[in-house]
Amino acid sequence: MNGLICFTNCLLPREDGSLVEQDLWIDERRGVILDAQRTFFLRKERPDRIVDLGGNILSPGFMDIQINGAYGFDFSVYDGNDEEYREGMKTVAEKIVETGVTSLVPTLITQEKSLYPKILNLLRPFSTPTSANLLGWHAEGPFIQLAKRGAHAPQFLVPAHEQFASLEAVYGAANLADREDWLMETGDTDAVGVRIITAAPEIDGVMAAVEETVKRGVVFSIGHSIASTDIATAAVQRGARLITHLFNAMPQLHHRDPSIIGLLGASPHLSAPMSPKRVAHTHAPLARSDSLTRRLRAAEQESPKAASEAFDDLLTPPQTPIFANRDSELHLQKGKVTDMAFERPFYELIVDGIHSHPNSVRLAYTAYPEGCILITDAMKILDPHLRDGVHEWRDGKRFVKEGDKLYLEGTDTLAGSVVTLDKCVRNFSRFTGCSLGEAIKCATYNPAKCLGIEAKKGTLRPGADADLVVLDRKGYVQSTWVKGKEVWRKNAA
Amino acid sequence: MNGLICFTNCLLPREDGSLVEQDLWIDERRGVILDAQRTFFLRKERPDRIVDLGGNILSPGFMDIQINGAYGFDFSVYDGNDEEYREGMKTVAEKIVETGVTSLVPTLITQEKSLYPKILNLLRPFSTPTSANLLGWHAEGPFIQLAKRGAHAPQFLVPAHEQFASLEAVYGAANLADREDWLMETGDTDAVGVRIITAAPEIDGVMAAVEETVKRGVVFSIGHSIASTDIATAAVQRGARLITHLFNAMPQLHHRDPSIIGLLGASPHLSAPMSPKRVAHTHAPLARSDSLTRRLRAAEQESPKAASEAFDDLLTPPQTPIFANRDSELHLQKGKVTDMAFERPFYELIVDGIHSHPNSVRLAYTAYPEGCILITDAMKILDPHLRDGVHEWRDGKRFVKEGDKLYLEGTDTLAGSVVTLDKCVRNFSRFTGCSLGEAIKCATYNPAKCLGIEAKKGTLRPGADADLVVLDRKGYVQSTWVKGKEVWRKNAA
Repeated sequence: MNGLICFTNCLLPREDGSLVEQDLWIDERRGVILDAQRTFFLRKERPDRIVDLGGNILSPGFMDIQINGAYGFDFSVYDGNDEEYREGMKTVAEKIVETGVTSLVPTLITQEKSLYPKILNLLRPFSTPTSANLLGWHAEGPFIQLAKRGAHAPQFLVPAHEQFASLEAVYGAANLADREDWLMETGDTDAVGVRIITAAPEIDGVMAAVEETVKRGVVFSIGHSIASTDIATAAVQRGARLITHLFNAMPQLHHRDPSIIGLLGASPHLSAPMSPKRVAHTHAPLARSDSLTRRLRAAEQESPKAASEAFDDLLTPPQTPIFANRDSELHLQKGKVTDMAFERPFYELIVDGIHSHPNSVRLAYTAYPEGCILITDAMKILDPHLRDGVHEWRDGKRFVKEGDKLYLEGTDTLAGSVVTLDKCVRNFSRFTGCSLGEAIKCATYNPAKCLGIEAKKGTLRPGADADLVVLDRKGYVQSTWVKGKEVWRKNAA
Repeated sequence: MNGLICFTNCLLPREDGSLVEQDLWIDERRGVILDAQRTFFLRKERPDRIVDLGGNILSPGFMDIQINGAYGFDFSVYDGNDEEYREGMKTVAEKIVETGVTSLVPTLITQEKSLYPKILNLLRPFSTPTSANLLGWHAEGPFIQLAKRGAHAPQFLVPAHEQFASLEAVYGAANLADREDWLMETGDTDAVGVRIITAAPEIDGVMAAVEETVKRGVVFSIGHSIASTDIATAAVQRGARLITHLFNAMPQLHHRDPSIIGLLGASPHLSAPMSPKRVAHTHAPLARSDSLTRRLRAAEQESPKAASEAFDDLLTPPQTPIFANRDSELHLQKGKVTDMAFERPFYELIVDGIHSHPNSVRLAYTAYPEGCILITDAMKILDPHLRDGVHEWRDGKRFVKEGDKLYLEGTDTLAGSVVTLDKCVRNFSRFTGCSLGEAIKCATYNPAKCLGIEAKKGTLRPGADADLVVLDRKGYVQSTWVKGKEVWRKNAA
């Protein structure tokens, strides 16, 4: 017995959004994905177990980087009872796998300052043998904009007068310590907790804290903000790499100041490197390949090495548009645009069909597909088994659930999201017309890449954790695997 | 002498946005583009003249489908003197060629009703042997939204209580007569004048007039409107195929009601046909090609005809996403989305760096590149030779020109656009990072396609009018040709 499992008769999502018919090998004991080529062809090993997936899709497990709670537990509510809180974490981690989620970054919304040390002590990387992984926490607030606070308590919002020191004062210096390869420390009680901070860069002191935040390996996400285009751009130039629930809690896209949403269309004169694919696609190769062809011919007569170099050039797409007109003056209504390197940020989308119109979703996705990250931003009410109707909430309030729509009883006020991430993936494919493989990418590879953990999570690369979800061809979850073990199966109960 | 000209040593823009190094043959006498293959290789004809363009770009002439005036003449101002008005048209048509424009659709903004018959009688398809072509007119108003009227006179705005009959009453039934192949009639005094109508579909009676307008071969353009997503979508379903100056004079993109702008992201469940390229790119071919491969093999054993049909299927992209989840319920906040066929409309952009932020421009373009049309929407002040400073306007008012920015003296109020279309093309390439070939497409092929005249204008197809502009590799106009004759050359004067 070598503990090897071979999944066969399945489609694997690739990092480019396509699906390929291919087997996948994992090592059940180590809980990692194997290189089938090496394992099978070179080492001549045979699997202990062959799992025929009947033509279904074998995807990396989904990753939800913004979720407030589920199955009755709210990550932002701490009643002073550590055991109860830990039990809640466990409940969510163990149950959420039925939605295909194998990793999550629980969200802690704005708290009264004294509560942070208490909750942070609890909300650390966490998992059980049969649960999804809690990767650390997403601190949403308190450094956010009052005017865009949403459900955050206004009395707890604060500026960051001391810049990064203000962030340390709230979240705790230990939680922001610089750690290499933080994913390796799951289970370690010293593990660093903060993975993502959502803040408004226009709040006093926040902009000056971005660079240090990023240096510590924490993702700075722009959100609950009224940042202008200039401010939002500056934040990204300093290292912000995510936009929190795009469209919600930020200004609309104004065409003369497209603000945060406009970052998805950030102009390339700010953007030194373009992706080679885009360049190759957009720029007429002819004039260039012609001159390079000539160089190649000349080089061939000179030496094999020169010819080889010329050939490499021919295959390498140019990093700047051939015909771009960079030297003429640029008229903008305000100031001068600087020429700093610029990469567009990732952005979160809640694709429940309620928080953003399908047309808005498609507009964002087509503008910048590589940056799209699906999230649920779900409330503690999230539970696919919860029936429609009136339910108790908190403080004596009640809410009405109608499908994925949730509102306060007697009002039209949306009470948050209750959509599951697997449903977001299916919705997204329908709203945008993208393939299921491309939608899967937005719930696996893209969030992992944003967090910088795409070698371990959100992919099927050899060496990555064997966190997997089996989907039928319509995107419905059939079974979920964590670290090489099946932790949930449809109709198993 | 056969009147043949061969342009050589040049890059030709293709309809896919690329540039190719290729010769172009024209017949100077007939003023049309020739099929070089047939002319040179089959008929063995030699050109009278070979024009070496020194590596420059030989583009179809630019087309401006929204322009209010230029060189001191305003298409919307008629002082009762027909001769003066005709002289103004002639001035614009003859001078505008220096900006690379060889076709334009002059805009008539909202007028007092009695003026329409008078101006319309004058503003017909028009050209001189050395001028650009006025293709007919773009009627902007009077069926527009008061709240989004911009510079239109509020007292002249009207509803369309009688639906299409109201449009006929204003513009004249003869101007809306159904004509096949209207481009053929240039110069004909009976030629129909109305090419484009900008109206607000939410105005009483307008929506009901869309279908008849479209039937007459007139482009219905949504603009100066507060249409909701539902209304804008319905207008497009009825045949509206253009959005007037996207972003300006319409609601911002609201994520829950993305309104007119959101049409650029209109969801594919509304959109029966997708472009084959998009489908091929977005949908994992494997499962399908696999089953088709199997079918192909089976068919081969059956009959050559069955095999041939199976092979055709293999090459034809599917019209629906393979994995799309069309049968599940769709939650939208309002009503049910119908399943009518839907093609996204073209949209006009003023890319002067002032009317829309570069990020907004890029966002729109990346969302729907095939629909992008560059326009100047220029005021009569447009004149590349006009110096910066204070100039007289009208009614004793004066304006200040600062580069491409124009505002009323003593205010911050923008007084319209003065950018030239060739500059829009250069700006667009820089703002979006697209190649010059792709930017050219937005000022040539796309507007021609919107008007349905892409066989004659805006392309280099054999048989099309030899309306050409020579651009250097940075997009600066070197010379302009209309119907096979050079009508302007840089530094010639």
